[in-house]
Amino acid sequence: MRIGIIGVGTVGGGVIEIIEQKRDEFHAKLGVLLEIAGVVAKTEEELAPFKAKGYKGFTDANSLLEDDSISVICELAGGYELPFKWITKAIEHGKNVVTANKALLAKHGSEIFPLAGQKKCHVLFEAAVGGGIPIIRTLQEALVGNQINSLSCIINGTCNYILTRMAAEGLSFEDVLKDAQKLGFAEANPSFDIDGIDAAHKTAILASLCSGRFVDFEKIHITGISDITAKDIKFVDELGGVVRLLGLYNRTGESVDVRVHPCIVPQEHLLAGVKYVLNAVYLQCDNLGPTLQTGAGAGKLPTASAVVADLVSLARSTETGHIEPLPMGWFQKENSATLVPIGETSTRYYFRFVTKDNYGVLSKIAGILGENKISIESILQKNIKNREKVDIVVTTEKAKESDVQTALAKIDSLPEISEKSRMLRFI
Amino acid sequence: MRIGIIGVGTVGGGVIEIIEQKRDEFHAKLGVLLEIAGVVAKTEEELAPFKAKGYKGFTDANSLLEDDSISVICELAGGYELPFKWITKAIEHGKNVVTANKALLAKHGSEIFPLAGQKKCHVLFEAAVGGGIPIIRTLQEALVGNQINSLSCIINGTCNYILTRMAAEGLSFEDVLKDAQKLGFAEANPSFDIDGIDAAHKTAILASLCSGRFVDFEKIHITGISDITAKDIKFVDELGGVVRLLGLYNRTGESVDVRVHPCIVPQEHLLAGVKYVLNAVYLQCDNLGPTLQTGAGAGKLPTASAVVADLVSLARSTETGHIEPLPMGWFQKENSATLVPIGETSTRYYFRFVTKDNYGVLSKIAGILGENKISIESILQKNIKNREKVDIVVTTEKAKESDVQTALAKIDSLPEISEKSRMLRFI
Repeated sequence: MRIGIIGVGTVGGGVIEIIEQKRDEFHAKLGVLLEIAGVVAKTEEELAPFKAKGYKGFTDANSLLEDDSISVICELAGGYELPFKWITKAIEHGKNVVTANKALLAKHGSEIFPLAGQKKCHVLFEAAVGGGIPIIRTLQEALVGNQINSLSCIINGTCNYILTRMAAEGLSFEDVLKDAQKLGFAEANPSFDIDGIDAAHKTAILASLCSGRFVDFEKIHITGISDITAKDIKFVDELGGVVRLLGLYNRTGESVDVRVHPCIVPQEHLLAGVKYVLNAVYLQCDNLGPTLQTGAGAGKLPTASAVVADLVSLARSTETGHIEPLPMGWFQKENSATLVPIGETSTRYYFRFVTKDNYGVLSKIAGILGENKISIESILQKNIKNREKVDIVVTTEKAKESDVQTALAKIDSLPEISEKSRMLRFI
Repeated sequence: MRIGIIGVGTVGGGVIEIIEQKRDEFHAKLGVLLEIAGVVAKTEEELAPFKAKGYKGFTDANSLLEDDSISVICELAGGYELPFKWITKAIEHGKNVVTANKALLAKHGSEIFPLAGQKKCHVLFEAAVGGGIPIIRTLQEALVGNQINSLSCIINGTCNYILTRMAAEGLSFEDVLKDAQKLGFAEANPSFDIDGIDAAHKTAILASLCSGRFVDFEKIHITGISDITAKDIKFVDELGGVVRLLGLYNRTGESVDVRVHPCIVPQEHLLAGVKYVLNAVYLQCDNLGPTLQTGAGAGKLPTASAVVADLVSLARSTETGHIEPLPMGWFQKENSATLVPIGETSTRYYFRFVTKDNYGVLSKIAGILGENKISIESILQKNIKNREKVDIVVTTEKAKESDVQTALAKIDSLPEISEKSRMLRFI
């Protein structure tokens, strides 16, 4: 199988490395031959080391896209517009595609997949979500006989690293972020990760696979982790939980509830043990009960391994047989899932109110919560020595988000409240 | 795809149920039609409910095996000799096979897989190991580009249930076993599970897939859990660990180290969170780092789900295309893996010595351990009020099993030792 690789950065370099290592083994054991027909990079400088090894190198992707001897394009460049053009052109030329580009799929999947369906081309993307976790394969193949009722995932390693260290070391978000940047666990411009965008891209893809309908990334409620404080993490610990940024999918009748935000996860939940840069996907299906898959979410070789697994699958599907692509034509705007608006969702809540003086304020808070149909489950009051700044932590029974927002706005306008109230949702 | 189902007990009944539920969905979404051509049971009585629903029922498996219109035999009867004959005959007739029978594969896989290779038949067995965990698919497809350096699995739900409850409730093995039997978590004759045989069947299959060589079940060191005491579990807890029955595979040069025995797993290890009947597989691979998959290991519908996923894969491989079976011909006695003898393995150890009187005995024990090149890591001494029965718990640095056996035999012959010493290995 002749492969064209666009993008020879970290992941692309890793893919080439693994193919070099394992090519003979794949050939001997599986009867498939992975042959790198050419590589594309932005500059001759980037191409130089690959040309030195004997690969054909180009700075123009069309050199691969227009080569009829190439049956697969491996898009590992990242970004949106150019990759979209390349992939579209590859499919129009009848080529199969392997990509690790979750942002592209979240944004343009509704154009790419139906086109691939028409042209009977495979588009494989195991590496796009949770690098070392074979979650795409699991959803598409292993759980083909199961209905996914809910999915909860830790799918951004940077956020999980920051939250784990904040809890373990009692540090502030800012301090851990700075250190994570130094250590290479967070980008210089971290907003894509810490604001939950990357997690939402991946969650949108997973939610589409779970529901069999197109889940539009643009419609997902997203809250990042930059407002999480060391104090809240400590209170949550006292309550027997940990804070994790989760991507959530819940089937609710005909609609789907898809969200990305920090969550309180009880210590005994399998997701609570998923620490630092690990990713994890927790599923609840009919006929099966809960399952968890956890592993490296990103990184050169984990992601490259997933790309190579897709290439081998593809080679087996097209070289030793002629298996039809999995139908993904449903992944289109006309077949969009209806998302439950965030205001309509229900869960248990954690609030922290900072009050100037607690005489009487607790009854006012309790009154406002009650008026808004929010039942208190527990109350924890700290800092009682300092009457100027008393933390009141409240957890609730299941309540409706819109009621919670109304109540919090009202509470925040009380004269006794000295800081904007903090809110966290339970898983 | 016309399917013949042999065995309509729990799993077979579940498979039929799921196919009835999902047949139209599979047809509409994936273009594959799963058609149950006939079912086989031992008696007409067992067949009656299926015949009432319109299925063709037979008490002689040959009725299906000799029907050329049937392309897949689903063997869900259990046992060894008859299923082996049926599967062999099915393959000789060019039929594909789906089975959940781990005992059969551990015992006769080295005959079945090479025959299937010759006849170009698929033999799929996702349901045979860890029902709800897609571990076979993961090893064969997702990790095709990775070398598995080690695998540790919790693969018998009965044992994990018993060990979890012993720890949570401080109960004895016997008491929990009795209760587990009442509740249906253990068989009336539990030895297949508690002696580690079932775990070893599954571990042999996984180890074969990991190593690409046939790992003979008969050669695996197996220790069950019936000697585990509540006292040892409590001491292990004090040391920050839990006891789990693990199946272990380690690649060591050209040999493989495959064992099934109770292990001490540190609290912070992902496997420690796998409780009650859950199963889990923990892998360490090149290019990837550690991954864990956990989920239901057994039960009617989890196992049946895995069978159905295999049937759908097969239908896609053979109906929408003509993909060749994954080569499994290496799974034969001529290609056996060399197993490291248990005496040659090395790990950290936990010992509990029960001494009549501790004056002087500790120095004797330490002396014997030292003579046998075993370094003590920690010592914990309890019950010091009762000088007739003093527990001395010792953990060691990495030591060699044969040295440990020599040392323990010598220690057990000391006059001050009042009970056979207890030994547990660390993961």
